Parts: sequence; structure tokens; C-alpha cells
Amino acid sequence: MSSTLGRLFRVTTFGESHGPAVGAVIDGCPPGLSLDEAVIQAQLDRRRPGQGDLTTARSESDQVEILSGVQSGLTLGTPIALLVRNEDRRPADYAALAGAPRPSHADFTVRAKYGVQPASGGGRASARETVGRVAAGAVAAHWLGVAHGVGIVAWVEQVAGLGPARVDAATVTRADVDAHPTRCPDAALAPGLEQAIRAARADGDSVGGVIAGVCRDLPAGWGEPVFDKLEAMLARAFLSLPATKGFEIGSGFAGTARRGSQNNDVFVARGSGLGTATNNSGGVQGGISNGEPVTFRVAFKPPASLARPQRTAGYDGAQIELSVGGRHDPCVLPRAVPIVEAMAALVLADLALIQASRGPLGGR
Amino acid sequence: MSSTLGRLFRVTTFGESHGPAVGAVIDGCPPGLSLDEAVIQAQLDRRRPGQGDLTTARSESDQVEILSGVQSGLTLGTPIALLVRNEDRRPADYAALAGAPRPSHADFTVRAKYGVQPASGGGRASARETVGRVAAGAVAAHWLGVAHGVGIVAWVEQVAGLGPARVDAATVTRADVDAHPTRCPDAALAPGLEQAIRAARADGDSVGGVIAGVCRDLPAGWGEPVFDKLEAMLARAFLSLPATKGFEIGSGFAGTARRGSQNNDVFVARGSGLGTATNNSGGVQGGISNGEPVTFRVAFKPPASLARPQRTAGYDGAQIELSVGGRHDPCVLPRAVPIVEAMAALVLADLALIQASRGPLGGR
Amino acid sequence: MSSTLGRLFRVTTFGESHGPAVGAVIDGCPPGLSLDEAVIQAQLDRRRPGQGDLTTARSESDQVEILSGVQSGLTLGTPIALLVRNEDRRPADYAALAGAPRPSHADFTVRAKYGVQPASGGGRASARETVGRVAAGAVAAHWLGVAHGVGIVAWVEQVAGLGPARVDAATVTRADVDAHPTRCPDAALAPGLEQAIRAARADGDSVGGVIAGVCRDLPAGWGEPVFDKLEAMLARAFLSLPATKGFEIGSGFAGTARRGSQNNDVFVARGSGLGTATNNSGGVQGGISNGEPVTFRVAFKPPASLARPQRTAGYDGAQIELSVGGRHDPCVLPRAVPIVEAMAALVLADLALIQASRGPLGGR
Amino acid sequence: MSSTLGRLFRVTTFGESHGPAVGAVIDGCPPGLSLDEAVIQAQLDRRRPGQGDLTTARSESDQVEILSGVQSGLTLGTPIALLVRNEDRRPADYAALAGAPRPSHADFTVRAKYGVQPASGGGRASARETVGRVAAGAVAAHWLGVAHGVGIVAWVEQVAGLGPARVDAATVTRADVDAHPTRCPDAALAPGLEQAIRAARADGDSVGGVIAGVCRDLPAGWGEPVFDKLEAMLARAFLSLPATKGFEIGSGFAGTARRGSQNNDVFVARGSGLGTATNNSGGVQGGISNGEPVTFRVAFKPPASLARPQRTAGYDGAQIELSVGGRHDPCVLPRAVPIVEAMAALVLADLALIQASRGPLGGR
Repeated sequence: MSSTLGRLFRVTTFGESHGPAVGAVIDGCPPGLSLDEAVIQAQLDRRRPGQGDLTTARSESDQVEILSGVQSGLTLGTPIALLVRNEDRRPADYAALAGAPRPSHADFTVRAKYGVQPASGGGRASARETVGRVAAGAVAAHWLGVAHGVGIVAWVEQVAGLGPARVDAATVTRADVDAHPTRCPDAALAPGLEQAIRAARADGDSVGGVIAGVCRDLPAGWGEPVFDKLEAMLARAFLSLPATKGFEIGSGFAGTARRGSQNNDVFVARGSGLGTATNNSGGVQGGISNGEPVTFRVAFKPPASLARPQRTAGYDGAQIELSVGGRHDPCVLPRAVPIVEAMAALVLADLALIQASRGPLGGR
Repeated sequence: MSSTLGRLFRVTTFGESHGPAVGAVIDGCPPGLSLDEAVIQAQLDRRRPGQGDLTTARSESDQVEILSGVQSGLTLGTPIALLVRNEDRRPADYAALAGAPRPSHADFTVRAKYGVQPASGGGRASARETVGRVAAGAVAAHWLGVAHGVGIVAWVEQVAGLGPARVDAATVTRADVDAHPTRCPDAALAPGLEQAIRAARADGDSVGGVIAGVCRDLPAGWGEPVFDKLEAMLARAFLSLPATKGFEIGSGFAGTARRGSQNNDVFVARGSGLGTATNNSGGVQGGISNGEPVTFRVAFKPPASLARPQRTAGYDGAQIELSVGGRHDPCVLPRAVPIVEAMAALVLADLALIQASRGPLGGR
Repeated sequence: MSSTLGRLFRVTTFGESHGPAVGAVIDGCPPGLSLDEAVIQAQLDRRRPGQGDLTTARSESDQVEILSGVQSGLTLGTPIALLVRNEDRRPADYAALAGAPRPSHADFTVRAKYGVQPASGGGRASARETVGRVAAGAVAAHWLGVAHGVGIVAWVEQVAGLGPARVDAATVTRADVDAHPTRCPDAALAPGLEQAIRAARADGDSVGGVIAGVCRDLPAGWGEPVFDKLEAMLARAFLSLPATKGFEIGSGFAGTARRGSQNNDVFVARGSGLGTATNNSGGVQGGISNGEPVTFRVAFKPPASLARPQRTAGYDGAQIELSVGGRHDPCVLPRAVPIVEAMAALVLADLALIQASRGPLGGR
Repeated sequence: MSSTLGRLFRVTTFGESHGPAVGAVIDGCPPGLSLDEAVIQAQLDRRRPGQGDLTTARSESDQVEILSGVQSGLTLGTPIALLVRNEDRRPADYAALAGAPRPSHADFTVRAKYGVQPASGGGRASARETVGRVAAGAVAAHWLGVAHGVGIVAWVEQVAGLGPARVDAATVTRADVDAHPTRCPDAALAPGLEQAIRAARADGDSVGGVIAGVCRDLPAGWGEPVFDKLEAMLARAFLSLPATKGFEIGSGFAGTARRGSQNNDVFVARGSGLGTATNNSGGVQGGISNGEPVTFRVAFKPPASLARPQRTAGYDGAQIELSVGGRHDPCVLPRAVPIVEAMAALVLADLALIQASRGPLGGR
């Protein structure tokens, strides 16, 4: 509890890092959508470990199998179960955790919560849980593109305090993002980010950063007042990811220093309707999309798992020095890009279906 | 949709700014809790307009009536309905909105979403909707205090880029916060914040800022992996508030510039268990409370409603200058403090009950 | 918990029998629907006590007030709060309950569940809770009629083992049902039912019976496999009513004695599509409406509250004879007719919106 | 939508009859419960086809694999994913369905709802979907037994109008039920039921019947007023099963003919508390368990799939005679017994956890 997200487009994820498998069940994907494993695999490949020497050495091919909900290449409207077998399981790496919790990891809190301790320490807090999210999010994003022309792109904006990247949110593509192994599409900045990651790795340390993203070509009207505002659902989705500590939409924290007359987005004619001259709102007003791009930023702390020994206390209270095996990323941001995109897609697909329930012009 | 929040401790709010009433229904409040209107009224009084010349001149006494769920001063475990009549309704002030949407307000998106337009323009996007949240949140906070000893305090940390306030999150009280009309408990900073608000008002303009808060004395174990992590639920709750644009927990965005070895919170013996030497995690690890204070920050943009005329486009696309009546705050932060506290309480009460369902040591 | 029903068309009810008020909040009613109190009052008047000497003497005018969600006679798409004040509160009538639970009433279980005892004994198990259901159901039924042409009619089919009434489900109207105070539209049977009710009253006793109903002119396609099948949602809705003990759809229990070749409904051409020659399915196949009338029956036990003394045990275990005041119906069926209609309407409105979320032909 | 059931003990099922696999994900199973495949397999073996010549010849071993949530034989409190591969897939058997819907089957409604047609006609309406329910229900029942001492037994009470079986609900065991291939534990009646099933099969026809069941040793206090009453949740769960048309709790429809003075259950001292002298309530009062056995009955129609040709109309409206392959049961009741038990277990486990959230004596 709770591994289910969404009201009409619902995803349930499952699986431990060192158990047999991870995956997801999507309930509520509209019928008649073309779908095969390749659509999903593309995003899993962007998330999987072992993409290069910036990421963990854990070796997982992360091949997805569709177990249900698709027939002859079309979705049936029934639950779509997605399965990814774990290949490189090494629970023994974590034997040291039995006596002491790793700093800033979920070992301590999972034990306090459940009274049992998974072999991997933090259980579902593992980044491996996000495999199911990415698989399901790829389906959501595919539907959003086919049914509504919505596109979602995220990228690495800052690492270790370096940046922000200069990126044109109106035009940046996933190919632009993937052009550099850091997934920072600012060619001038990316090498510096890579260097910061390598330096941290060399020190057995880790670095954090910021991922920015945009959802483009949403119609006006998505998002549900009061508690399910679009930005609220995004914030919840992103803050449910491992290692995230902050969220901004539109002008975010920076906008708090401005006056209303500076920050307000003036309406202007656009096509047959209205648009806004600026986008400090980040594409939402009153929790509802206004047709402008939805722009957001997500803060990732430096990973808690370090190669070098760390001080901690045993469950008996004694201070010790802890060295843990396992294979971890010095920086999660490059691999987190498709994860962030997945969460945005899951949120939007759900809100799109809810708004569709009203039919044209409010269901009348 | 959706005006309901929570799984076991559930609140549903209702009411438009210029309709007959606003209020809330709480379903799932534990039975046997002492409760009367005074507990609720105290927080409503902190939220209500007309507290002084820093806030809107709208005149509302905001007296709450308990309609159900309480008998002889004790909760029954049944729904608690809370009613606040609107007294100072002036829908005519908004007549100008029929032809043109106010910048950065919900007029445009509500119309796009529902196909009908409330008299007040943005309908449930109004800050008046938060009356129900504050009333329900006061009940939640009361239960958290009585049943678990949990305390929640929020305060104004920044206004118009001034600050941050220096506040000891371990000890600050609501009385400290209320000592100054800005609800900034840093006596050295508060006068400057007040001056910034007065200056904006004098210009017919508005200013934004940051509210910080802390939840103290939570046990370890609250918060539900995967999608209902404590910080995810907080982020959603705060971003569902009008005018919010950002959220941080613990080290937030600032922590993204640090290395893991700097940012990790080392475990140390505390009492009969463990605590952490630092609290960059903000009281959560893996989405579960660890027993340290839960610390957070919420970004509020400057209010979109300005006293002075603003440019906008009519629904016909023509550029116009719009002057709207209504009575608005130049800065929402002082009144938003109890609202932020309410949202934190609603989140924690729900997660507390979910964890309680497991019984001692995981329900066995 | 849990006083909320529905996913998209959601109703939350509140209120105790002897507290200040009862009511409901509807969240998710589509915008732009014409609505005023009269639409709701009509069904409340059919439910209210004191309609004649067949019902309880409790005196309640049950006037509804719309607190929100409606403006200028149109729904806004926002929560519709509905309030009915209790007028004839006599909690003192129940003083005898402090020491002993009434047989087959909720006094004992409510106390076991909550640890506190409402003045009226069973709290939310009271039939008075259904005021909120009827008010909300009237809105749902109104929307179903306006938006989809769906009509719902229920009637008394059996009382005290007498019947079943002969009724043409294809044509019976609410006016037909209301023609006799028993709400049995079979003119030949109704006087006998009335006599049975009067006989029970004369004995200080009570009688049960069966309500039948039909939902007409549904399109094919409503109802959600697997767990939210149309008949499953109806069954849950009806069995959530006080005093209900059974539910049937279509051929029900009687059909279990038939062979498949007798019970199957053969498809035939109807208009431009297909219909079925018989309707043993009761309008659903695989949990989804097939366009035929949805026909159902609901069993109501004789009310547990009797005018005459009853044996029971005190909480101390001693056998006693209990005489309780209060004002109760010797037979709930006539007043339960609008309640049953309300529950059917709430279920259908929710399923209609969920199906609408798929758009024409499956959302593509 | 919607393949998820439950609020705290939640199950999501997936899978088509002729796709790669079926299964379930349980979210919210308490941690620390001993669990392995054998616990689940025992109930799957009672449900699986090919148990004898009374059931379908479809050949499926239905071996379950636990994919997550269990480690070293104990549940972790995380999602438990359960996988059963389909072995005997023959979608080609259903080719005839492309042009015409089978009578009383879901072919027509699924097509109307989704706009696409699964190879097997009714998709998730297939009895094969219940594999996931049985697997998940076995886990729920196991937990109920270990944590609360609750036992659930269902049996075949009537077939083809024969019966009811005479069974002592206080003592009947699953072994008693399994003693005869009909799963009717009344040794005098069972041979007649078997004969009726064989006769139907010989005619290429099918027969329906009634399954009765009991849940024993529940504590008082489970079940949630208003909409989530214990009997409401059971009714919904059972009516969500393929082929079910009716539900009764306690005195059911028969009790509607009695007077209150006959039907009421008088309280008597029992142990240190109270029990009732009779159990017409079926173990619930006001929707809450009272500590007596929960007794219920479920009506199953004769299966719609017949070996012999049936009349129907093509989608073009022309009357045709339809012969469908596939391999079907002439009577589903013997195999439905573990399915009914599973649904009861899923409902009770969820309500048990919700009540546990209140802690001892109402959460105070």
C-alpha cells in the first residue's frame, strides 16, 4: 500500500529488487490502441542500468513481456499486465544490513513500518521499482500521443549545482536529450555535468541535480479542482519517485519574489481562441490546463548509496562504519529522465479520461 | 471532481465563493474524540478575512456549525459535516468577467473545462474554498495531537523575495507565529515583510512568498510506498492549494548541489532507538516517516487578482484593459498559514490510520 | 467510513437521526444541468414520514436546501451540497438503550465497532440516513433522464408474503405506483397489502416484503468488468440500505432451476441493431448493459423496531424485556420505493460517466 | 476498468482466456505472514478445469508462481504478484463469433462497450478471469485464519432446482464439501445433483443452481456503514462473478414473509458477552458483523455456453443458428465453490484491516 495510481487510467506496480520479477498492471487503458512490446521497450532501454559507465554496473536487459490486454496488436480495454524478470539478483550483497541501517536509505523506516526487512534493505523504495512505472508510462504516453497529440519530454537541467541547462522547451526532443550520455541537451553544459558525475564516482561518492520537463499540446480543460489539480497530481507523482525532494511548476520558487503585475500571464488571441503572452503559470490555472505547455522541475538528492564506507548506528545503538556492496549509480539523473516522463504521462492520461467523461462541452 | 481527499480519514469540501455556504464533510474521523466548534473556530479565525489591514476587506465571520458526527462533545465515528454560511456575497462585482478572463486566474480554464462560468469567474479555484479545508484540518490536527502527540506549525518564511526567516523548527509555536500580523516569527524580518505587503497594496499590486512548516513528534512508520509516500501526499496536498507553485521537503532544491556524503543523515542512538544527526531527509526515508521532524516549504505566487487594471484579451480575441472589483489580498501568505497546517494535518491523519490498520508490528 | 459512493458521480451522505441535520454532497455531477430544489423535493416527499397512517408518525417536512454547485438554475460541475434539517428530534426516547441492545438492530454492533453509542442506538444505521441518498439520487435520476432518456421506476411487489404484484415493467410509471398508499401498482393486490400492514401495526408488530424495479432505455455498454459490473454495483447499492437481505437481477433465484436452453435470451433484430427475445438476463450480460430493461428485486426484512415489548439481554448478560419509544414504521416498503430508485440512479449515473470517458466507440 | 477490489487489502486481476496468462496483484497484504505457493495452489486445484467428467475438458494445470512480495516464506507487506500461464489456448474455436453474438453471453455487450472484440468473445467475462480471484482469495483466507481464526466454507446447495442440501453451517468443512464431485456435502442429495448435471451434458445443455456459504468466528465490528456494509460488499463481490443472478444474507427473501416478532434475533448471554438465539440476520446488523456466523446464498444461472446449436441474430440482424466450439462446463457450481470462498475472503480481509485502523476500542 499503495502501489496503485490513478482513477480511470490506473497503474499498479509490483516487485522487489532482488525477487523474481518487477512489473505493472494497467487498468483502464482505452481500447483499440495499437500497442506492442517495442513501444514500451524503448523507454525501458532508456531507464535500464548498464547504459554506459555513468550508470550502475548491474546487468539487466529488462525485456518486457505483455501478458494480457492486447490482441492482434490492439488494446482490448482490459488490464494490460507487463512483466520484466530480474536477472542479476544478488541479495547476499546486502547481508550487512541486518544489523544496521544505511544512512538516508529506507532500511530503517521499512523495518519500523512493516516489522520485517527485505533482503535489499529498503524493499519497494529501490529504484528498481520504477521499471513498472516506466513500462506503464510508456503506454500512457503512447495513448496521449495517438489520441491527443500530446508530447512529453524531460531532460537533465542541473547536476551537482552546475547549470541550469539552456533548453528551448517548445522544441526540445527526446533525441536531443539522448544525444549526450548525461541526457542534458545543452551541449555546452553537458560535458561539465559528465565530469562532475565521474569525479563523484572516483571518490566513491554521489551527486544530485534537477530534471526539467515539458508536456506540450494539451488541450485546455485537463485537471480536476479541488484536490486533483493538474499540478497537485504531478507533484504527487514526482515526489513518489525515489530520491526526489522538490517540485516546481511554472515560475515555481523564483516567482515568489515577483509582483503580480510582473508574474501574471496576459491573455492574447491565438488561432481561434486565446493563449498567454508569457507562461509563468506553467500551463495551468486553477489546477486546469490552459493550453500552454506544462513546464516543471524536479529536485533529486544525491543517491544515499555510496561506494565508500559510511558511519551509521547499529540497531543496538552502537556507532559503526558500514560498507555495503550492491551496485549503484553515482548520479541517478540520466536514467531518471524516462521515469519522470512516465509519471507525467500517467498523470495526464488519467486526467484526460476524467475530462473526457464530461463529453463535449461538459457532458451535456 | 475531485473534492475528496484521503483514504481512511477523508474530507470532502463544497461551496462557491458567492453561493450560500462553504463547508466540509469528514468521513473516517475516529470515534471517542472530544470535539466542539471552538477547536475548529480557532483555525478558521486565523484564516478569515478582515483580520487587519494586511488582508482583504471582505467581511466574513466564518462561524462554523457542526451538523453531524458529534454527540455530547464526542465524535461518533460517523461523518462530521461542517457548515459555514457565506455572509458577504457580491457576485455582481464580477460582471465584467463574462466577456474576458482575468490574467493568471481560473476564469478561462474553468470555462474551457465545464462550459459554464460561475459568477465569481473561477468557481472552486477561489481561496474561499479553503474554509472547508481549514475546518476539516483543524479536526485532523486535534486528533493527531490527542492520539499521537503530533504537532504542526507553519509560518511565513519569505515575502517578495525577502528572507528567509530564521526560525527554530524544533520549538516554534503557533503563538510565536501569530505574534506579528505577517505570521513571520522572525521579529527582525517581519517588519520588512509587512512593509513589502503595504507597498504592493499601495501600488494596487500583489506579492508572493514562501511558507515553511514542520510536523513534530511523528512516530517512525507513517507513509505508504510506492505512490502514497508521505512527501508525495504532502506535495499533492500543498499543490492543490490556490496560488502554490512549488514544494520542497528537507534539503529540497538546495540539496541537489551537494554530494551524498554531505547530504546523508547519519544514524545515531536516541533514547531506546535511533535518530539522525542531521535532517536533510526532512523526516522521511523511502516515503516513510523516520521519527525526525518533517520539514517542508511551499511556494506561493503573487495573487493574480490586482486592484489595478490589467491587460487581457476578451473571448473574442480583442485586447482590452480589465478592471475588476472584488476584494482581494495583496499577499495571501499570512492567511495561508492555517491552510498549510490544515493540509499537513489531513495528510498525516490519513497515513496514521492506514499504518494503524497493520496493528502493532505489522498487523500480526 | 464509508459514506461515499461512486467513482465519477460521487455522493457522500452525513447526519444522525437525532442530530441537527442530514444531507449529502454530490461531487461530479455534470455541469450545465438545469436543477432546483423542486426536482429533489419531489422524491423527498415520497420518502418522508407522516405521509399517512401507514407510516411513522415522526413529523418531518424534510425541506431540502441547495448549498452549493448550482447557480442561476444550472449546475456548475462543482460539488452540490444538500441540507435537510432534522425537526422532530427526540433522543430521550432512546434512553432505555444504554443498558441493552434491541434485537436485530444495530445498537450492539455499533457499540462493538466504535466503542461509543449514539443516542439513537444505531446511529447511521437509521433509516433517516437515507434522506441524503434520496436527495442525491434525485439529482442523478434527473441527469440520467435529461442526458440519456433513462427512466427508473420501483414499486412494492410483495408484503408479508402476499403477491407478487402483476406489473408491466415496460410501461409502469411513478404515478401508477403512487396511486395507492402501499405503492403497489397492482390494484387487485394493493388492498390486501394495506390490510397486512394495518394488521401488523395493530399487533405492535411489523412486516417485510419485496420491492421490484426497472431501469429503462439504457444504451448498451454501461457497467465495468470485472468488479464493477452493473449488477454488482446495484447489489451493493441495495444491500447497503437498512433492512435489505436479498437481491436478484433478471431471472434471479428462479432461473437457477432452468436449463440454459430455456434461460438464454435469443438475439433478434431490433431497429438498426439487436435486442433479445426474452430478458432473463435482466438487461445485463457480462456485467454490461445490453439495451434491454434492467430488472431487479430487493428483499426487505420486517423492521426490527416494534411497538410491543421484546425480550433481549442487557450488556451485563441478564435477560430483560425491552420497551422502546421512538416512532417507527410497521412496514418500510412504501417509503423505501424512492430510496431504491435513488440507489439505482446513483449507480447508473456513475457507470454512465465512466463509459463516457471512453468517448464514441471506445475513446479512440 | 475496474479490475481492482478493496481499499486496504486490494486485489487487481488481469488476463484473457486465450492470452498468455492470467493472474493477480495483491496490494496491502499484512507483512510477516507465512506464505508459499502451496497455500494458493490448493484452492486453484479446486477451481481448475479437468477435475473429472463433470467439468470442462479444457486442460490447464494452473500452476501459480509468486513473483513478488514474499521472501524466505514471509510476506513483506509489499504487492504480491501471482502468475498463472494459460496452457490450452484455442482462440480459433471462436472464429464463428465474429459475425454473431452468442445468446446470454458477453459477446454483444463487450463489443458495444469497447468497439473491439476479443478472440474469445466476452474477454474478461470469461470464467478464466476467476483464476486471479481464487489465487488472491486464498491469500486473504490464509491471513484471516492465521490472524483472526476466521474460517470460510461454501458448498453446492441446489442444482437444477433440486435441493436444498441439508448442511450444518456451524460445522461443515471443505473436506466434507469435497467428498463428492458435485461439492454438495449432503450425501443424500449429491447423487441426484450429479445425475442432473450428466443429463444436461447428455443433452448438450446446462444447469444452474445455488451455492451457500458461511464465514465463522468473525469478531463483532467488521463492516462499514453506510455504503460499505458487510452484506453490501459481499453482494457486490458475488454479483461480480460470471453467471450470478442473486444474493441473500441470513433470512433473505424467505424472511420477507415473516413478521418482525418472528424474524428478530433475540440477544442472549454468550461467554463474557452477548450472542443471538437465532441468526436470521446472517451475522450482520446495521452492516456490521455481530459475532454470529455470516451466512449467505448465491444464485448461478445455467451457463450460457451450450454444446448444441442455438438460435441468435448476426450483427446484420439476420437470424442464424450458431454452433460454437470451445470447451465448457454443463454446470459451473462445483468449480465455483472456491471462487465464492475467495470473494468472501477478499471482502472480509479488507473490512478487517479497515476496522483494525481504529485500534482497540475505536482507535483511542
